[in-house]
Amino acid sequence: MKTKASKYGLGLDFGTNSVRALLVELRTGRETATAVHPFRTGREGIILDRSDPNLARQNPADYLSGTIACVRAALAKARKADKSFNPARVVGIGIDTTGSTPLPVDRQGVPLAFRKEFKRNPNAQAWLWKDHTGHAEAARITELAARTHPEYLAKCGGTYSSEWFFSKILHCLNKDPRVFEAAWSWVECCDYIPGVLTGTGRPETLKRGCCAAGHKAMFNDGWGGLPSKGFLSELDPKLGELRDRLYDKTYTADVPAGALTAEWAGKLGLMAGTPVAVGAFDAHLGAVGAGVAPGTLVKIIGTSTCDITIWPADLALADVPGLCGIVDGSVLPGYFGLEAGQSAVGDIFNWFVNLIAPGGKKEGSHEALSRKAARLKPGQSGLLALDWNNGNRTILVDQRLTGLLLGQTLHTTPEEIYRALVEATAFGALTIINRFEEYGVKVDRLVNCGGIAEKNPFLMQLYADVLGREMTIARSSQTCALGAAVAGAVAAGPERGGFAGFVEGQAAVCGIKPKIYRPDSGRHKVYLEIYRLYRRLHDAFGTKSWTGNLHKTMKDLLALRDVQRSEAAR
Amino acid sequence: MKTKASKYGLGLDFGTNSVRALLVELRTGRETATAVHPFRTGREGIILDRSDPNLARQNPADYLSGTIACVRAALAKARKADKSFNPARVVGIGIDTTGSTPLPVDRQGVPLAFRKEFKRNPNAQAWLWKDHTGHAEAARITELAARTHPEYLAKCGGTYSSEWFFSKILHCLNKDPRVFEAAWSWVECCDYIPGVLTGTGRPETLKRGCCAAGHKAMFNDGWGGLPSKGFLSELDPKLGELRDRLYDKTYTADVPAGALTAEWAGKLGLMAGTPVAVGAFDAHLGAVGAGVAPGTLVKIIGTSTCDITIWPADLALADVPGLCGIVDGSVLPGYFGLEAGQSAVGDIFNWFVNLIAPGGKKEGSHEALSRKAARLKPGQSGLLALDWNNGNRTILVDQRLTGLLLGQTLHTTPEEIYRALVEATAFGALTIINRFEEYGVKVDRLVNCGGIAEKNPFLMQLYADVLGREMTIARSSQTCALGAAVAGAVAAGPERGGFAGFVEGQAAVCGIKPKIYRPDSGRHKVYLEIYRLYRRLHDAFGTKSWTGNLHKTMKDLLALRDVQRSEAAR
Repeated sequence: MKTKASKYGLGLDFGTNSVRALLVELRTGRETATAVHPFRTGREGIILDRSDPNLARQNPADYLSGTIACVRAALAKARKADKSFNPARVVGIGIDTTGSTPLPVDRQGVPLAFRKEFKRNPNAQAWLWKDHTGHAEAARITELAARTHPEYLAKCGGTYSSEWFFSKILHCLNKDPRVFEAAWSWVECCDYIPGVLTGTGRPETLKRGCCAAGHKAMFNDGWGGLPSKGFLSELDPKLGELRDRLYDKTYTADVPAGALTAEWAGKLGLMAGTPVAVGAFDAHLGAVGAGVAPGTLVKIIGTSTCDITIWPADLALADVPGLCGIVDGSVLPGYFGLEAGQSAVGDIFNWFVNLIAPGGKKEGSHEALSRKAARLKPGQSGLLALDWNNGNRTILVDQRLTGLLLGQTLHTTPEEIYRALVEATAFGALTIINRFEEYGVKVDRLVNCGGIAEKNPFLMQLYADVLGREMTIARSSQTCALGAAVAGAVAAGPERGGFAGFVEGQAAVCGIKPKIYRPDSGRHKVYLEIYRLYRRLHDAFGTKSWTGNLHKTMKDLLALRDVQRSEAAR
Repeated sequence: MKTKASKYGLGLDFGTNSVRALLVELRTGRETATAVHPFRTGREGIILDRSDPNLARQNPADYLSGTIACVRAALAKARKADKSFNPARVVGIGIDTTGSTPLPVDRQGVPLAFRKEFKRNPNAQAWLWKDHTGHAEAARITELAARTHPEYLAKCGGTYSSEWFFSKILHCLNKDPRVFEAAWSWVECCDYIPGVLTGTGRPETLKRGCCAAGHKAMFNDGWGGLPSKGFLSELDPKLGELRDRLYDKTYTADVPAGALTAEWAGKLGLMAGTPVAVGAFDAHLGAVGAGVAPGTLVKIIGTSTCDITIWPADLALADVPGLCGIVDGSVLPGYFGLEAGQSAVGDIFNWFVNLIAPGGKKEGSHEALSRKAARLKPGQSGLLALDWNNGNRTILVDQRLTGLLLGQTLHTTPEEIYRALVEATAFGALTIINRFEEYGVKVDRLVNCGGIAEKNPFLMQLYADVLGREMTIARSSQTCALGAAVAGAVAAGPERGGFAGFVEGQAAVCGIKPKIYRPDSGRHKVYLEIYRLYRRLHDAFGTKSWTGNLHKTMKDLLALRDVQRSEAAR
């Protein structure tokens, strides 16, 4: 019996430092080949400014050269792995990127960064998600929306972030009007790439994804798309004028943005005409690749985290304060995508290991610190930290917050601090889950993905103990690219050998790993005590409404420490 | 013309890790010879307990062997430096020690630690000043005194510390009744040593110093000496019984405790019959050696600090809340000795350098970190720390407090943290000076001494900038031993070639170094802004009465950081 020839989806995953291509065999979910290409400009692909720690940009030229390099490398690997592999069997391409990462473009959709005059101007580049230069503008937008259009904020957690679309554009207008004036429009990275590949990049023809629009640009069909011209004009008349050159319609990721042009087919070594799906953010397509469903929260744990779940669009749902967004169709068509997240998780551990570098290279590696930290009992160090080294995305939605470490004595060790930092991120994760459930979004199941979930059993067990829940791990190590590949295959549709829809696609390719981390009830109990103190600090430093006294905080930690030490000594 | 033969004072300074002998030529103040001998037992002379970070003890045998070794070494050096030197010209011996460092003794005044059965029992050793095992007992004493005898607390800052005499004895009674029962009495280290050298060590004959008694044991002639038997009995009937075996009279350090015995004269190589002054604490005799006077605050900056000034005993003086003590004659006869201090200063920097060891050995040395930290502007890091890694001695008098670091981002460097730790100790120092002045004790002049004051220009300049005052440094590097030598010479009196009194002695031997650190008004202004935030955290975590909100703390620091960075970039 002749088996039907394998079909493939191609996922392109644009990260903070690199771009990845993943070829997935659609029937089996087998990941046939993958390749990564680092971005070349700046420090690990990020353009920085020594005098402004808030600035983080990317060179859009890196996106294009990186795409060519990694797709070609993945195709070569696929050919090597399977002699019968043929690029013609790649039925669809899907794209996910970081975000909000908008870039200024001209009337043709070409980035201003490609012009000679702007080549070295960071304001003409892509404004990377973690750029916080627009924090003053974010505060203005929040203030104006709270006063005149509270509905705009209700879907994005009550605060408009400095990481988002209009904060960045308005900051550009204030800081570098020459760039702003030269820009015909601004496009999110996740819309820019499909536009380039399909030749639909002109602002008039570009299909914008509902994911970026809804989560970062206050787009909602309920109020006619983007924020009103009057609202934007009050921020700045020129921002109001820009609205006409943005967009009034958005698309889910099952819709084709267009078909691969002959030029790009040549560059990549693929077939012209291959459908390319509308782009979405990495976390959202990552959730798809991890098997997101109602009641399932997908945690992508990496340098930062994104926590994603979905809710049927036809069921009532309260506005959950502090969430990054509640957007119809942003993850799967027919569902609200609910996004939360922590601004830094792995980045905090990396900061401690790489910048503070305790005990030198050998003693202070992630591995050595994790190994020693794993031997400690909850509360034994007397330390408590806040996980705000990069601000707080959920539930406070405030980038102007910073880290805190409390409880140091003259005997505090690096592994104790390392553990306290991991615990702080776990407490942050618990705060998010609690917030979901307080507003009726029950979390029955956690599926984790991302480098840390895969490689750090110490953290995973600690999270299970703090959260009091089982921690499972998505089977794929590349859930973002996998979700993007699924989107490409859904956009291609069954007639081309793709999927009829996301449910079919997820059933074919998603799963979890055998190893499951289960909570220890004794440790969970201690952690709930410590969490009470975490929450006190969280509210004291993070909310305007808190009043109280912190006099007992250090004493409570010391009392707990003394109990846990004497138990450990037994 | 024949010059009068030189006379010498010998100062013995018992520190945390070692004992020092200093020979001073009395007419010129020249420090003829000095020698140090480290204590051998435990870790750098301190007996620790892995399961209890509060425990810190010393082996009293180390005091005796160390005394012999360092006195003999100093005499040998003096002979080498000056062929005409003769031990017979040593007219008096003075002693200073750490404190409160009490040890249990038998009826003959011999430490229980010397008995075979107690040799390895840490509770039978000397309870070093930084032992905090008695924190629960300290809380009980404070509570009972506040309720029944508030006057006891009024002279020691409103809170009885876990570092002090009765907290330690009561903890021994609770924890190890066998040792408590075996002890006939308890003596402070500064009383024990003169007792040994002069053969007056039996509790009935021992002359106790007013310094230790007044500052650590609530001794005050105003209420009949030690706390009443009723008070101590309410804590524990056995503590009440012990009172009868303690003391009811104390002495200033100008009084001879006795004369050197023939046995000890032989051991040390000195003349039998040499007067030995009543002992006092290192900080108090250090203040004498630094030139303390009314209006002059002496800061001894080392692993911790002691801040000492004096006030004429015949002038009205309010009880200054939070001071470690206000004791008649504890520094100079005829003056109240006022003692404040920070529980850890150098110890915090040592913790960061030795235990956290940022960036490895070379990058993370005190020298390298100071050099880099000195290049930063105030506020530029956005960091703020509390200097409570070893609790807070003044003004909160609370050992159950811990360190705090706030403002970390993903870019925070070790030198930024190092600077924040130094700044935190400077803010702690400012809090103490402010407290003195709020209660009418004007501080006109600062004289600093201790290792850090001499060796760390970065810290000294930073302190000048934070305090807005000139920082001068005592001429002698051994002010404690120098003050002890002066006390020995005063106890000897002019007829033996010593001094008629402390004023004469200080005039002969005290002075300051030419280098004076002067405040920069611009930096001082920024520091006053940051101090406002320090004080908010200090009160929020350190006092029961504070209520408020900390929501602006991180934001204020970030705003200041952004201003200072853009200035630094210019």
